[in-house]
Amino acid sequence: MNASKISPTIGILGGGQLGKMLAQAGADWNLDISVLDPTPDSPASCCAKQILGNFRDYEAVLEFGRDKDLITIEIEDVNLDALRVLKGRGKKVYPDPDAVALIQDKGLQKEFYSRHGFPTSEFILAANATEILQLEEAGKLKIPFVQKLTKAGYDGRGVQIVNEITDLDNLFDAPSVIESLVNIKKEIAVLAARNVSGEIITYDPVEMIFHPTANLLLYQECPAELDDTINTKAKSIAHELISKLNIVGLLAVELFINQHDEILINEVAPRPHNSGHHTIEACSTSQFHQHWRAVLDLPLGSADTLHHSILLNVLGESGYSGDAIYSGIDKCLALPGVYIHLYGKKQTKPFRKMGHVTIIGKDIDQVRDIAKEVSKTLKVIA
Amino acid sequence: MNASKISPTIGILGGGQLGKMLAQAGADWNLDISVLDPTPDSPASCCAKQILGNFRDYEAVLEFGRDKDLITIEIEDVNLDALRVLKGRGKKVYPDPDAVALIQDKGLQKEFYSRHGFPTSEFILAANATEILQLEEAGKLKIPFVQKLTKAGYDGRGVQIVNEITDLDNLFDAPSVIESLVNIKKEIAVLAARNVSGEIITYDPVEMIFHPTANLLLYQECPAELDDTINTKAKSIAHELISKLNIVGLLAVELFINQHDEILINEVAPRPHNSGHHTIEACSTSQFHQHWRAVLDLPLGSADTLHHSILLNVLGESGYSGDAIYSGIDKCLALPGVYIHLYGKKQTKPFRKMGHVTIIGKDIDQVRDIAKEVSKTLKVIA
Repeated sequence: MNASKISPTIGILGGGQLGKMLAQAGADWNLDISVLDPTPDSPASCCAKQILGNFRDYEAVLEFGRDKDLITIEIEDVNLDALRVLKGRGKKVYPDPDAVALIQDKGLQKEFYSRHGFPTSEFILAANATEILQLEEAGKLKIPFVQKLTKAGYDGRGVQIVNEITDLDNLFDAPSVIESLVNIKKEIAVLAARNVSGEIITYDPVEMIFHPTANLLLYQECPAELDDTINTKAKSIAHELISKLNIVGLLAVELFINQHDEILINEVAPRPHNSGHHTIEACSTSQFHQHWRAVLDLPLGSADTLHHSILLNVLGESGYSGDAIYSGIDKCLALPGVYIHLYGKKQTKPFRKMGHVTIIGKDIDQVRDIAKEVSKTLKVIA
Repeated sequence: MNASKISPTIGILGGGQLGKMLAQAGADWNLDISVLDPTPDSPASCCAKQILGNFRDYEAVLEFGRDKDLITIEIEDVNLDALRVLKGRGKKVYPDPDAVALIQDKGLQKEFYSRHGFPTSEFILAANATEILQLEEAGKLKIPFVQKLTKAGYDGRGVQIVNEITDLDNLFDAPSVIESLVNIKKEIAVLAARNVSGEIITYDPVEMIFHPTANLLLYQECPAELDDTINTKAKSIAHELISKLNIVGLLAVELFINQHDEILINEVAPRPHNSGHHTIEACSTSQFHQHWRAVLDLPLGSADTLHHSILLNVLGESGYSGDAIYSGIDKCLALPGVYIHLYGKKQTKPFRKMGHVTIIGKDIDQVRDIAKEVSKTLKVIA
């Protein structure tokens, strides 16, 4: 490779923690990175140039892309019209705006899975609340079901479970995907990467462990404890999917395993993902380095898992809002195999993602014990 | 630990590759880091605020330190008078200016080793060339010997070997340490870290492999192939030395092993060091994270070696000067266990350190084969 290939002028839409960690990884190769983000002093600004502006705004994205050779994203909710114009002007835009458009719309996403034979839970598309009520009255829809807005749902927003008749009074009145409720045995995620030349690699599945009653992610464990058959199938779904979606970069695929050991695609994200943060310390190639390899059309790195790992999100403590204060860091850093990442968000609020901690080790039981200790100790207050 | 302990305003004297990698590691904890460096767009500027100024200049260092809570260094050739004033004003200055003063002067350093019983090659101090000639005539000095200027020697500058009588015509005419030539069997380095509370940790010794005829470092290998006795003794010397020198931060100790398996201290550096770059991928805690743990008085991280590793410096190719072009990166990234670090120096010149590559693996022979391939493939031209 000559210099021109590794030294394009790069723009990232979004300067949150994913943009920050992309920029940190890019610094190893001295990549020239700017981020577009509306919040001054965004997390990424510590290691990238920041242009103040909204990545959802047509003009802002167009202007940001003007002097860039390559534009990529850390969030999928971006202005695609502007990205299409930039692509038309010969800029490299990865992932492709059309792939992002399909993923932005949960309805199109579900239809895509059906059309290409990817396993996913049964669904019906509905234009609004009235249509959902009609479907239910006609017996075409059985309670309980899940209503997901086709657009703007993110991190649990725009998703609700209709458990009983009275819940029908609170339906979202907007285009929705109605899914039958999956009897979930496990939730896993598989990260895939694909470079410009079409090389594909998949990481080992990660298992999400939720609170038994509250719908709250407690931690993620890698590798997931799975039968070989399920493990292989999950990776193969992610492999096929990144190819069929024509994505260059990363694709995080969240999957359900139901009580019949069937694998169903839940959601996907065409970018670095929370479920892949453990790759920084626990895998041969971090998802952030892998993203750069993919979009720069370099050979992909090994996705081998080197250590057992648990990933904990560091969330703003309930009851505290304001200037963030981190307590318990020194105690956690005294424990073996603990890697703390603080994103640099100045303000904390309840459940805001302020950082993450990866715990690695040879023995998963020890890793679990240490994770419990970290979870009890590290707090973000104000 | 409360927030105040991890969130001081930090200044680093020097913004080269060591400052850059310190800043990259600091970004994981969202540390507030500025560097003082006279070269615009210094390597560290990609992930730290840069103040333009000379770290050897009294006023520049004083001004830089004015609004900092903690000042540290990535190079030992800095203005110590200014650091002493800043320390007097209650700033945290690590390592201590007195320790750096001792290390800046190779004469004082040698006398320190003698006084405290640390093993080092025999030496005489001389004020100038005339004194050296008189010592030689009086039979107190046997050719061959090494002349090292007590000050301003760095990376081989200010050091020469007097092999024969005629070499006496080219003596440096300045204060020097005259050392007897060591019959070297191996050259190794041991990195030690010490935090404010006095906790000390040492990494496994690294072996430097030189070209059999040219005085050129070919690569570094970790762990060094050593007898247990020598291994333990080398680590214990580094442990004792960082304590006796009262250093908070890192101390890289370069050691000779002679043909009688005696260990002799060659040189030390009170900062992150080239011989410790493999720690980023090959050890539990990188030297850069360890430095921050030490100066922030956090518990030190494990120094365990997780993988066999070889470290190659990426030097500017002989015969090329100008805007740097990197060739062979794609081929190298296709090899397993290869981690490339480019420092972002815009201009290359023969033998300039432009980056480094760490190769890790389970099998040292395979690591050596891949290192050879990388060494042949990756070139910096202009």
